Amino acid sequence: MAELVGNVLVGQSGGPTSVINASVAGVIAEALNHECIEEIYGAQNGVLGILQEDLIDLAAESQQQIRALKHTPGAALGTCRYKLKKQQDFERVLEVFKAHNIRYFFYIGGNDSQDTADKISKLAQQQNYELRVIGVPKTIDNDLPITDHTPGYASAVKYLATAVREVACDNEAMGQGDLVSIIEVMGRSAGWIAAGAALAKRRDHPHDPPHLILLPEIPFDQEKVVEDIRRVLKREKYCLIVVAEGLVDGDGNYVAADGATDAFGHATLGGAGDVLADILGQALPGVKFRVAKPGLLQRCGAHVASKTDVAEAYLAGQAAVEAAINGETDKMVTLLRGDGDQYTTETGLAPLADVANSVKKLPREWINEDGVSMNFQFIRYAQPLIQGEVVLPHDNGVPVFARLDKVRVDKVLPAYEV
Amino acid sequence: MAELVGNVLVGQSGGPTSVINASVAGVIAEALNHECIEEIYGAQNGVLGILQEDLIDLAAESQQQIRALKHTPGAALGTCRYKLKKQQDFERVLEVFKAHNIRYFFYIGGNDSQDTADKISKLAQQQNYELRVIGVPKTIDNDLPITDHTPGYASAVKYLATAVREVACDNEAMGQGDLVSIIEVMGRSAGWIAAGAALAKRRDHPHDPPHLILLPEIPFDQEKVVEDIRRVLKREKYCLIVVAEGLVDGDGNYVAADGATDAFGHATLGGAGDVLADILGQALPGVKFRVAKPGLLQRCGAHVASKTDVAEAYLAGQAAVEAAINGETDKMVTLLRGDGDQYTTETGLAPLADVANSVKKLPREWINEDGVSMNFQFIRYAQPLIQGEVVLPHDNGVPVFARLDKVRVDKVLPAYEV
Repeated sequence: MAELVGNVLVGQSGGPTSVINASVAGVIAEALNHECIEEIYGAQNGVLGILQEDLIDLAAESQQQIRALKHTPGAALGTCRYKLKKQQDFERVLEVFKAHNIRYFFYIGGNDSQDTADKISKLAQQQNYELRVIGVPKTIDNDLPITDHTPGYASAVKYLATAVREVACDNEAMGQGDLVSIIEVMGRSAGWIAAGAALAKRRDHPHDPPHLILLPEIPFDQEKVVEDIRRVLKREKYCLIVVAEGLVDGDGNYVAADGATDAFGHATLGGAGDVLADILGQALPGVKFRVAKPGLLQRCGAHVASKTDVAEAYLAGQAAVEAAINGETDKMVTLLRGDGDQYTTETGLAPLADVANSVKKLPREWINEDGVSMNFQFIRYAQPLIQGEVVLPHDNGVPVFARLDKVRVDKVLPAYEV
Repeated sequence: MAELVGNVLVGQSGGPTSVINASVAGVIAEALNHECIEEIYGAQNGVLGILQEDLIDLAAESQQQIRALKHTPGAALGTCRYKLKKQQDFERVLEVFKAHNIRYFFYIGGNDSQDTADKISKLAQQQNYELRVIGVPKTIDNDLPITDHTPGYASAVKYLATAVREVACDNEAMGQGDLVSIIEVMGRSAGWIAAGAALAKRRDHPHDPPHLILLPEIPFDQEKVVEDIRRVLKREKYCLIVVAEGLVDGDGNYVAADGATDAFGHATLGGAGDVLADILGQALPGVKFRVAKPGLLQRCGAHVASKTDVAEAYLAGQAAVEAAINGETDKMVTLLRGDGDQYTTETGLAPLADVANSVKKLPREWINEDGVSMNFQFIRYAQPLIQGEVVLPHDNGVPVFARLDKVRVDKVLPAYEV
């Protein structure tokens, strides 16, 4: 295989996570190992920055800041939900790549982003522009196919399981058989995150909170849930419910929908917890409902990130560069779980086309018969992912995160209207 | 002073915090030092448990569990919002104390609880029953008078300042001048907690988030806030707002009130963030609003507790016992700040009557002229309180908290109807 000499471009896309920057750090660290890579650029705000030729010189950042990326939440390069719409957009991306001799493109993102990367890769091939495109998986939603799990998921789940344990202490102290606590979590189409709350239960303590997990996979049955709550309140002092924002009713409609849609045509959601408290409160007079909606806090809770997750996000970034150097293109890095009793991870590769726009559902057989709790198969899957705690540097009592200098790469093309 | 031989009763009251159990641990540890103290009991669910003679034998708990109390959120003895209503209730409390030879009563709580403790103490004096009553301050609201600050406050603030730093990373990555993020925090009548978000700003970086802090002390002026947001969105990529649940309009009415009241006659609140997003969203078309409401998570976030706060809560528990042993009664332990440049704490005592039902307001002169940010006086006050991080024991990736055996003390009195 002929060595491909040129520059690297790494970009981040979609909703940030606690560990997406660790993948950037992995890309940079590995890129520095290879002589054929000349410059390491970052795309400011994903494809939006590429269209506008807003590139950052990552080699100009201090080692200190690159290292700090490993524990910095958000998306340090900036991200976007912009969808490349027309052929002209794709042409422009290639034009920018050619202008800056980008030969290695690493795109860190979820389903939509992998689709974008795939299309860019295909266009480059059509144009006979030698480009190696490797996707790096990222999403707290854990809904990418093929990969065993997705960097970002475990830290969101560790945040949630920790919160459930803590809120349980609070509720147990306050409840007199009349307290229902609802935590609304992210999860539009799949209940991966809500399911993760089950990790708060101690082994062999099925009655530990969360008492009910309301998943998008199981249509909301008001009468059954009211009965479930009554039973829990009788047995325990309180009832702790975790509900996914994407909870649907028997007709498949979101329990809480505001009718709007985002740039990708998905319905935007919010308020399943409040709607639930309202509905259930009417059915259970005298019971006090408390709703918490951690919102963005759950996807950027770097102070409670999973050490395993951080390491895997970093590893995925490194693996992307290695694969590209080895001549791979049009692939996404996957995480593979070893067969042994001890949890181990290796990386693999999957065609972008197989990943793009496909969704991995939470297996129905991992949900208990009761529809509101997870069985040992889910626990066996998820528990290894949240192991290990990170220690963040603090200044004056609050965590210190990376701040990139973002030295701009000179623009050489005319401006482009997005 | 004659030595008073008898038993200790410690109780917890009102909303739990991340460190209220550290005060229980302090009481127990110090009580063990004194020969005149024979038994150490806990009241199950505060005064409610006293009325029902539900007492726990704390000396029967393992050292391990008592030590674990130092980092366990919630209220391990159970708490209540029950208000002793009639003379008969107070008589019953004394009857229970006499039946179990309770000579030392430590009540850990906020304003209402200190009032309760005061009334119990006064009744004991009237009846010539020798009883030493010492209150231990507790409330995330930080609204107790005389004491420099209140155990529990700093950990809630550290939780919030950490969240603001993290959400800022997320928002900075996502915002394109069109993103407003609102975090709704507790604080019914005073903005102490919301103000604490200011600790997320770096020194000499006044433009750091939170960009606007909406306090109950400053009536909500829609036009001004809309203008403030416009200015921030122009300067930054996003606008991060922290709002106290008790935000009021120009007429002094809660911006978000549901009309209900709690057992003490306070209006119950919720949803200031959502109401705000709705109002501001109409005034700022095209701007995306995201609301987070950490709710209970902020008052039980033991994993991000302030080490200083934990130590002071423990110290306050110890000081309560020492004071009682020294013959003090009808007092609350206060925290006093040393005069030096280095932050130091000592404990003092204040009459319960002076503490009960009084509220410490956030000083107006600590709020900047703009009404939406805090000045150096507040920072100088609050910053030392959130210093230091705790390290919690973990099992399978989630924190492990104390679980008391709660060995019941035999009841000797007829049942009492509450």
